[in-house]
Amino acid sequence: MSIGTLVLLRHGESEWNALNLFTGWVDVHLTEKGIGEGKRAGELLVENEVLPDILYTSLLRRAISTAHVALDAADRLWIPVVRDWRLNERHYGALQGKNKAQVLAEFGDDQFMLWRRSYSTPPPPIERGSEYSQDTDERYADIDGGPLTECLSDVVTRLIPYWEETIARDLRAGKTVLVAAHGNSLRALVKHLDEISDEDIAGMNIPTGIPLVYEFSGDDLKPANPGGTYLDPAAAAAGAAAVAAQGK
Amino acid sequence: MSIGTLVLLRHGESEWNALNLFTGWVDVHLTEKGIGEGKRAGELLVENEVLPDILYTSLLRRAISTAHVALDAADRLWIPVVRDWRLNERHYGALQGKNKAQVLAEFGDDQFMLWRRSYSTPPPPIERGSEYSQDTDERYADIDGGPLTECLSDVVTRLIPYWEETIARDLRAGKTVLVAAHGNSLRALVKHLDEISDEDIAGMNIPTGIPLVYEFSGDDLKPANPGGTYLDPAAAAAGAAAVAAQGK
Repeated sequence: MSIGTLVLLRHGESEWNALNLFTGWVDVHLTEKGIGEGKRAGELLVENEVLPDILYTSLLRRAISTAHVALDAADRLWIPVVRDWRLNERHYGALQGKNKAQVLAEFGDDQFMLWRRSYSTPPPPIERGSEYSQDTDERYADIDGGPLTECLSDVVTRLIPYWEETIARDLRAGKTVLVAAHGNSLRALVKHLDEISDEDIAGMNIPTGIPLVYEFSGDDLKPANPGGTYLDPAAAAAGAAAVAAQGK
Repeated sequence: MSIGTLVLLRHGESEWNALNLFTGWVDVHLTEKGIGEGKRAGELLVENEVLPDILYTSLLRRAISTAHVALDAADRLWIPVVRDWRLNERHYGALQGKNKAQVLAEFGDDQFMLWRRSYSTPPPPIERGSEYSQDTDERYADIDGGPLTECLSDVVTRLIPYWEETIARDLRAGKTVLVAAHGNSLRALVKHLDEISDEDIAGMNIPTGIPLVYEFSGDDLKPANPGGTYLDPAAAAAGAAAVAAQGK
């Protein structure tokens, strides 16, 4: 049995991406542009004959809906689906709901980039019961409402054990696995796969809506194509630059 | 622990419903009207405070997409999902892809109603590899391509053991279970729940897009509200009459 194929898909543009707000665990909708990105992602899967056998998503509708639209376009809505909070976006703490440009102006470039991209510095925790907190959300009842803030290191800590128990097993069983998730949960996963250092991960950005495909040569799941392969490389480069420039 | 709640949802109008074609296992899209029915179903769930904990669907996109739209409207896209072919529509055999009015004109009212509504008379089997057969569809590879035709009795035979192993267990565990499926797979389930005779089930029609809710008083899962409760009774009565009149 050959090792399977991993397809990472960051959700398309959400309403809060368009408004330039920190989103985190706030469960916002896709924009029409975001729905179009999902459809294009599905078409890229078909054009490249990358046909998922199973789908993993976060518990957030922007990832769930992106996957739905993509799999509809790829004629694969019928595959099994697993949803788990450990694929959620990084919890952005007290920054959730705040405008990125305003935070940048208020706190300055160094603090802004520290919160956005440092590996181990979380934003201040969100206040329980506040407008953009999730601590009373039923979907997180089993985990005591979830975290109140996270740095990327926290995401790695929650995500990688889950990866080993679920997605990695499916890959070792030869499956093509689609993971529909978020900028930072996917960065955490890519950091693990490509063994990127805590420093270098700061400069690595994942564009929205473009499937990123990893192949593997053995059960250790070391990438045969380090860094993965975007199914639309030109659009991916432009998209990653746009992510890097956010807030500016 | 009290017994859970069962919500049955027949998919909204599909492209082939609109064209008056026998569909069965052919994987057709919803129409815009069908998408609207799904959204209305989700709004009815919210208005009636019937909030699913888990979703079961067939492997057919018209049921999957109806559930997606409904759960999006109900803010419940994050619940676990299980898909299984045993919730598929009845396989309509050689009638798949044929116009209902033409079949009625060609074969007469008695034969037409026998194929549509008799409990134990299947249509002629579909030819393997023909335009509207599914015997080479990857999603049915585990079941040798699936049946070549089915009567309602065949649907009961495939569905009820699955029901006992999955949905019935979730209900006994107190969950609210949404089943998004099809006219005949839901008729098979309702026949079992309400102990409807082989003769009487012929006259029972389920309208599209209106949640049908069953409550239970004990582990034997006998309905506390026999026949179930439609969340929009007036629309349900009109919808059931429209289903009964199909082909006329």
